[in-house]
Amino acid sequence: MRALHWDGSALRLAELPVPVADAATAVVRVHIAGVCNTDLELIKGYMGFRGVLGHELVGTVTAGPAAWVGRRVVAEINFACGRCAICVAGQPRHCPTRRVMGILGADGAFAEYVAVPVGNLHGVPEHLPDDSAVFVEPLAAAFEMLAQVRVEPGLASVVLGDGKLGLLAAQVLAQAGARVLAVGKHDDKLAILRARGIETVRLESWDHARADLVVEATGTAAGFSMAVGATRPRGTLVLKSTIAASTPLNLAPLVIDEITVVGSRCGPFEPAIAALAEGRVDVRSLIAARHGLRDGVEAFQHAAQPGVLKVLLAND
Amino acid sequence: MRALHWDGSALRLAELPVPVADAATAVVRVHIAGVCNTDLELIKGYMGFRGVLGHELVGTVTAGPAAWVGRRVVAEINFACGRCAICVAGQPRHCPTRRVMGILGADGAFAEYVAVPVGNLHGVPEHLPDDSAVFVEPLAAAFEMLAQVRVEPGLASVVLGDGKLGLLAAQVLAQAGARVLAVGKHDDKLAILRARGIETVRLESWDHARADLVVEATGTAAGFSMAVGATRPRGTLVLKSTIAASTPLNLAPLVIDEITVVGSRCGPFEPAIAALAEGRVDVRSLIAARHGLRDGVEAFQHAAQPGVLKVLLAND
Repeated sequence: MRALHWDGSALRLAELPVPVADAATAVVRVHIAGVCNTDLELIKGYMGFRGVLGHELVGTVTAGPAAWVGRRVVAEINFACGRCAICVAGQPRHCPTRRVMGILGADGAFAEYVAVPVGNLHGVPEHLPDDSAVFVEPLAAAFEMLAQVRVEPGLASVVLGDGKLGLLAAQVLAQAGARVLAVGKHDDKLAILRARGIETVRLESWDHARADLVVEATGTAAGFSMAVGATRPRGTLVLKSTIAASTPLNLAPLVIDEITVVGSRCGPFEPAIAALAEGRVDVRSLIAARHGLRDGVEAFQHAAQPGVLKVLLAND
Repeated sequence: MRALHWDGSALRLAELPVPVADAATAVVRVHIAGVCNTDLELIKGYMGFRGVLGHELVGTVTAGPAAWVGRRVVAEINFACGRCAICVAGQPRHCPTRRVMGILGADGAFAEYVAVPVGNLHGVPEHLPDDSAVFVEPLAAAFEMLAQVRVEPGLASVVLGDGKLGLLAAQVLAQAGARVLAVGKHDDKLAILRARGIETVRLESWDHARADLVVEATGTAAGFSMAVGATRPRGTLVLKSTIAASTPLNLAPLVIDEITVVGSRCGPFEPAIAALAEGRVDVRSLIAARHGLRDGVEAFQHAAQPGVLKVLLAND
């Protein structure tokens, strides 16, 4: 099969064997997969990953347990052992020996087929199109916030950053009832939120008024410092993006203002699927381009351009 | 009156006017005051403070509202406006226009007398000696953790750092029922905790096993990184000490392991007074020396020596 493979120095289209199903593993024929910023980091050396990239997908099960064959699915990316204390405690996404699809020890979805533990599969509602369903994984990561932080109706919140993560986070908070102000640099992206009734402001016009809840979705050290400054005393700052390693940061304001910082990674698929099925979140406006898998290398180059939102890879 | 004054370049004993009481302000004759690491930072330029240092004290009210005159007291250090939205919301310690005794816009307690808003006074139980009561302020800061983090009996916790803050934090968690492991570099200090039945380990022998709750009380960037690594996925890291400004720090593990970092500063006096009155916390073992106020400059030099615990200044 065709697959987009990273060997640690080059990203190239490779011909690889189709993965094999077993009683616990389904093989999914990938319809569409999405390029995530994490993919762009992986080809800079993040995690030391080697293999087929890609962890946002929608596809159809072609082999594996009969109950799944033929079903259209999305897939959770953390492949947990299911037996350790952390898995048994209900935190499989934090299993210490987990493999992660296209990120850590498991081939990913920029391929014609991908192998997925059946426990990681979720069926896709029939009326949900592929180019919405492919957003379930990143949207679930935004929904993770709601599992970690109590969002009361009217909660004053600020989302910093108008990239893919910021646009999803702002919509998730808004549909949960929070009063959201999205702060970004790109009016065309902020317009996607305004079309959903979400208040937006350009960074240079922002008054930096402090909010109960601030989401850092810029991934920069400057964004982190701004986010700290925008969190009211005793408020909560959600870190959705990994800040570049070993950046100079001043943590004293966290202590002085008794701010709570909540690191937030992968999330639950069910509420993300429901929100898409019910139209509570708009993801299709985030699609910047759709490339064929055979043009995967060019698609990566496109996705790496500053300001480009979601690039999709389709098995046409 | 005699007072230990910092003018921005030199710390010296000065002769200053005795402060004046009014309907809202008591004058307290200081019996004993404690030197805090914050004081040592202030004379390096922290907060740009100029004035009389000192914010840990026990004394007797000599002037002010009749109900207070003659009473032995300790005093909360945040002088709030009492009228702003944050004060009205019950967070006076975060009042944005607060003055802070001996730290920000208000003279402190390394003096014969100090002025304190009457709302900040707390009576001291008769049987509690001065050299215990002087620890109410730093102990209250340790109790702040219990107001922020849910500590169930048996909660696995690690306290990093065996300075004054670490020794108080470990005891506060232990008396709340947590299973505490204190990690430090100084066996003589850790022995204070072992005498209270708290498990301790020297840093070089520590297995770095991860805990539900980790308290960072070293105040170093290395301590912060170690604390992050010692917090289990989805666990809580309490930041009790301000980390030196703009240190290189890697926040990615907070996101990957979804750790919650809780900044924690000043705390409630009532539980600290009760814990001391009931003997649930040992503070007198933390006293390294007692100097007369007239030897205040030398006392600061003593307190600044590495490894020295609490230095007290007495108005003998």
